Amino acid sequence: MTLAMSHAALSQHLEQGFGPVGADLTIDAVDEGSVTLRLCPHEGHIRLGGTVSGPSLFLLADVAFYFAILARLGPVEMAVTTNASIDFMRKPAGDLPVLGTATVHKLGRTLAVGQVLMRNPGRDAVLAQASLTYAIPPKRD
Amino acid sequence: MTLAMSHAALSQHLEQGFGPVGADLTIDAVDEGSVTLRLCPHEGHIRLGGTVSGPSLFLLADVAFYFAILARLGPVEMAVTTNASIDFMRKPAGDLPVLGTATVHKLGRTLAVGQVLMRNPGRDAVLAQASLTYAIPPKRD
Amino acid sequence: MTLAMSHAALSQHLEQGFGPVGADLTIDAVDEGSVTLRLCPHEGHIRLGGTVSGPSLFLLADVAFYFAILARLGPVEMAVTTNASIDFMRKPAGDLPVLGTATVHKLGRTLAVGQVLMRNPGRDAVLAQASLTYAIPPKRD
Amino acid sequence: MTLAMSHAALSQHLEQGFGPVGADLTIDAVDEGSVTLRLCPHEGHIRLGGTVSGPSLFLLADVAFYFAILARLGPVEMAVTTNASIDFMRKPAGDLPVLGTATVHKLGRTLAVGQVLMRNPGRDAVLAQASLTYAIPPKRD
Repeated sequence: MTLAMSHAALSQHLEQGFGPVGADLTIDAVDEGSVTLRLCPHEGHIRLGGTVSGPSLFLLADVAFYFAILARLGPVEMAVTTNASIDFMRKPAGDLPVLGTATVHKLGRTLAVGQVLMRNPGRDAVLAQASLTYAIPPKRD
Repeated sequence: MTLAMSHAALSQHLEQGFGPVGADLTIDAVDEGSVTLRLCPHEGHIRLGGTVSGPSLFLLADVAFYFAILARLGPVEMAVTTNASIDFMRKPAGDLPVLGTATVHKLGRTLAVGQVLMRNPGRDAVLAQASLTYAIPPKRD
Repeated sequence: MTLAMSHAALSQHLEQGFGPVGADLTIDAVDEGSVTLRLCPHEGHIRLGGTVSGPSLFLLADVAFYFAILARLGPVEMAVTTNASIDFMRKPAGDLPVLGTATVHKLGRTLAVGQVLMRNPGRDAVLAQASLTYAIPPKRD
Repeated sequence: MTLAMSHAALSQHLEQGFGPVGADLTIDAVDEGSVTLRLCPHEGHIRLGGTVSGPSLFLLADVAFYFAILARLGPVEMAVTTNASIDFMRKPAGDLPVLGTATVHKLGRTLAVGQVLMRNPGRDAVLAQASLTYAIPPKRD
């Protein structure tokens, strides 16, 4: 499995193509099978009780999976999420980054399907797991 | 089925207990079976292409279901989402409000389960559907 | 919304096109917005404790949604489930039929998306809810 | 992470405690992090077109995850599925066994959460992925 975009190219795309969202996320690691994004929580990501909010983890999972598709296909514009299922298992401390590691299990002609595991750096415990499906627009010739 | 919190009480809770999130959402309607929240999208909710982003719809669904639980139980602090599955069906125009109507199908001792349908005001077409489970903390005596 | 197949045509399709599965299910009701299937549990559907098993409810939801698509499109061969998310809320008594009411919220060119609510006949309590996506094969010309 | 039940003990439980279901499934592998079950499809698992049916894969995922919980906790009676989300990616050939490898990511006091990946033996391609939540009954003292 070869990659269509390098770590550097994915980082540039994240910084330049995602507006305010890009500012909270960075590409942490890229390998043949997965892409890991890092969320550094700020005040807007914290919910009552001082933990990272569910919608912030959803955002991390959604964008991480999008970049795992980009790593395989190159810059596909306007791929959209059609389904996401997310399980929140442990409350993530608000003062630690969260890593989301996305793996594409199927890259079909019209659908990409896979999953994201979210953890704190250096920890084994899974904070949340997500399954995602993206619709890939037909190629313009 | 009687309600533990009125429309006015839910609105006050949303305005005072949700920080920045509360500012983007309002309680649109409350009846015996469901609670509807309204998201008025601003720049931060819009993704490439000018539509409301997936994470913004997730936020709407998540908070709408939380308030549907509150309407039944009263102000339960720290109920947390354990699972959410969301299907994105149609791209929501960025210049229209989105209504999320949440229905609680089961309100157990430890879990609340139900669904949210998202539409534009006055339209039948469903933009997105979500199924949610919240864990309800044990009562403090 | 007009229907492409009548109650009688759907019943015939279920009896003739589903092999052993068809024998356990019947078309209970068809209207413009939804199709209801009935599962009459027998020994093979019962799990330890005497309730209807999760896989049996999954089967009911999966087939009910398929027939809700057929009611709209006519006999589409080989449409396949791509995603299903199911919440089990209450244990269904093993000696009562289960009704699964399927509603198609989006019928696109390639994907059909909607939900199924499962109840015992004459009861309001929801036993389980499911969200489903089917891929619709391209038309053969 | 130590195991509460060995491969042999899990096999015996599957054979003796699951009635007709147990006959179609075997424990394929057990290690510290996961349990793999094998489904050898017979006529009742095949759908139109000759592939293994969705409900059969759901059954495999559901039981595999249950046995992954048992491997950790010992024979917990009456743990029940509360949520399952499954993505079907590739049609499984009807004449090959399907392996379901279940991993428990969280084993809490009341909920167990994790995932199952399904593949044909010796193949990397994922046929289906599932996320599952089980409710664990309180201990009887």
